[in-house]
Amino acid sequence: MSDSRRSVLLRSRPKGQPTLDNFSIETEPMPQPGEGEVLTRTLWLSLDPYMRGRMSDAASYAAPTEIGAPMMGETVGEVMLSRDPRFLPGQVVQGAWGWQSHIVTPGDRLIPLPKGLPYSAYLGVLGMPGTTAYSAMKDIGQPKAGETVVISAASGAVGSVAGQLAKRAGARVVGVAGNSDKCMFVQETLGFDDCIDHRAVMDLGAALQDACPNGIDVYFENVGGDLQQAVFPLLNPFGRVIMCGMVAEYNDTHPRPGPNLMSVVRKRLTIQGLIVSDKPERFAEWRTLGAPWVADGSLHYREHVVDGLENAPAAFIDLLRGHNFGKLVIRVGEHARGE
Amino acid sequence: MSDSRRSVLLRSRPKGQPTLDNFSIETEPMPQPGEGEVLTRTLWLSLDPYMRGRMSDAASYAAPTEIGAPMMGETVGEVMLSRDPRFLPGQVVQGAWGWQSHIVTPGDRLIPLPKGLPYSAYLGVLGMPGTTAYSAMKDIGQPKAGETVVISAASGAVGSVAGQLAKRAGARVVGVAGNSDKCMFVQETLGFDDCIDHRAVMDLGAALQDACPNGIDVYFENVGGDLQQAVFPLLNPFGRVIMCGMVAEYNDTHPRPGPNLMSVVRKRLTIQGLIVSDKPERFAEWRTLGAPWVADGSLHYREHVVDGLENAPAAFIDLLRGHNFGKLVIRVGEHARGE
Repeated sequence: MSDSRRSVLLRSRPKGQPTLDNFSIETEPMPQPGEGEVLTRTLWLSLDPYMRGRMSDAASYAAPTEIGAPMMGETVGEVMLSRDPRFLPGQVVQGAWGWQSHIVTPGDRLIPLPKGLPYSAYLGVLGMPGTTAYSAMKDIGQPKAGETVVISAASGAVGSVAGQLAKRAGARVVGVAGNSDKCMFVQETLGFDDCIDHRAVMDLGAALQDACPNGIDVYFENVGGDLQQAVFPLLNPFGRVIMCGMVAEYNDTHPRPGPNLMSVVRKRLTIQGLIVSDKPERFAEWRTLGAPWVADGSLHYREHVVDGLENAPAAFIDLLRGHNFGKLVIRVGEHARGE
Repeated sequence: MSDSRRSVLLRSRPKGQPTLDNFSIETEPMPQPGEGEVLTRTLWLSLDPYMRGRMSDAASYAAPTEIGAPMMGETVGEVMLSRDPRFLPGQVVQGAWGWQSHIVTPGDRLIPLPKGLPYSAYLGVLGMPGTTAYSAMKDIGQPKAGETVVISAASGAVGSVAGQLAKRAGARVVGVAGNSDKCMFVQETLGFDDCIDHRAVMDLGAALQDACPNGIDVYFENVGGDLQQAVFPLLNPFGRVIMCGMVAEYNDTHPRPGPNLMSVVRKRLTIQGLIVSDKPERFAEWRTLGAPWVADGSLHYREHVVDGLENAPAAFIDLLRGHNFGKLVIRVGEHARGE
């Protein structure tokens, strides 16, 4: 067992696009668990766009990380030392947080993971992103058979699940993604009805109109920017817009204007913000519902795996640029027993 | 009985602010009711801001009026001739539509009005505007005790009822109105906690912040423009915005930009459009609930009465400028039996 731990720290706050200079890597003596605590060795670290908010001290739904503190991120880890009688060395658990090779966590916050599915799935398709997609469709989008649903960032961790749930509800599902490989995955593997490569089309509004001849009933917003502007005129009466993120604008230093809201009156739209942690009961609900679909292969997902904690900063910067393809996870360590 | 009827017709579509030239007044022979129809003599005509939409052929929730056709508006009238056995001359009814001195309507569409309350109340506090306020608070705003509710156009037909309902729910209610007399009415007669005269303050955002030290939980949007821009930064997490109208922008020839929607994610806002006719059951519900409160004087309302059908165009133009003070109704004829 290693006698030191590595952490990725926030070194400075980015202005606009983060750079490698905003991060530093620290090595320090291995921390020891106190009474009721558990030391885990990180196997998988989840990187997600919302973490951009933690890097700023501006108002965000994610609390800002202090300068010099470790970046926060959910992990799957193997128990090394336990001073909580419910956990034993070798167990695999979820709920330790940090861009760190080893983490000490109160046992109360840890969830033991069952064997069977790949552990990284609990950070993606069955974890926070999958639960976000589930809550988005269940609590706000509520797609019905015959309706048209547009999913932004469609090949990503959240969009891929949301679109598959909308398909299960009988809707026509149109994805928007950032290159032709992603679009092929969205249509052929995920089974969406259509997918628009937003970098390849000249006129996003015209492309959307072609793909959505009956207008748009549900829009799942994860990107903002030009796509948002193109979607609003095509929304149908009683359309629902799930506001989950606007990653295309996260590096803006001044907010862009939004759509004129008179269409909200005219079309009786609902525009609603979603943060998955507001309904914590959805996590277990979705894990129970989704795990059998992952196991039987009917719920598809894709991971973008980057090896090594030291590569997390660069991978995160790429994520904000849309350079990932699938749920971005960092393989921090190998599971001793294999997976 | 007169042997002719007068109608206000749409002569041309306005560009921006309507002018008197957009209307014409026509006199024609008195129409006769066919089988199952009723001829009414108009006592009261309701004028409401949404009618601006009918004057345009642009997309609106109100169907456009044809050039040369009568302007549409709800009336209270007295039955003159009836070929529907359910109605007798002298009865007072609601449900005939038109800026007209006499109207022929299928009996199926008419509702007999009970005696007791002033008939004009059925066009305002107990009619479409009151029902709009009721649905806004019941279906979207859902104010709770201790929350802060901001009501735009607070002295108007809709806002005055909405604010009183929010007070009944135990909320702190702040009105925004267009002059000091209106603000005095809003605070002293309607019982709102505060009222901002938006024409008198230098900095609307600062005035709102002063009036809403705990932020804004519910915003009832009837005006748009500068007020909307000032409200959004003050909305609390889980705030609700009821989008009912944006009268300050109805004469715009190009839509203004709206608020950046990232705050909808960050604060989990709900922004929802409301058109009262989407839930027709609310009309009878509200009439049943509100009539006793009007009768016992606990629900206050104010009317702005203009005499004479020929003055409807000028009164409507003033309404769009906010020059009315209370629910605008045109007294088209006197009730033979008095009220």
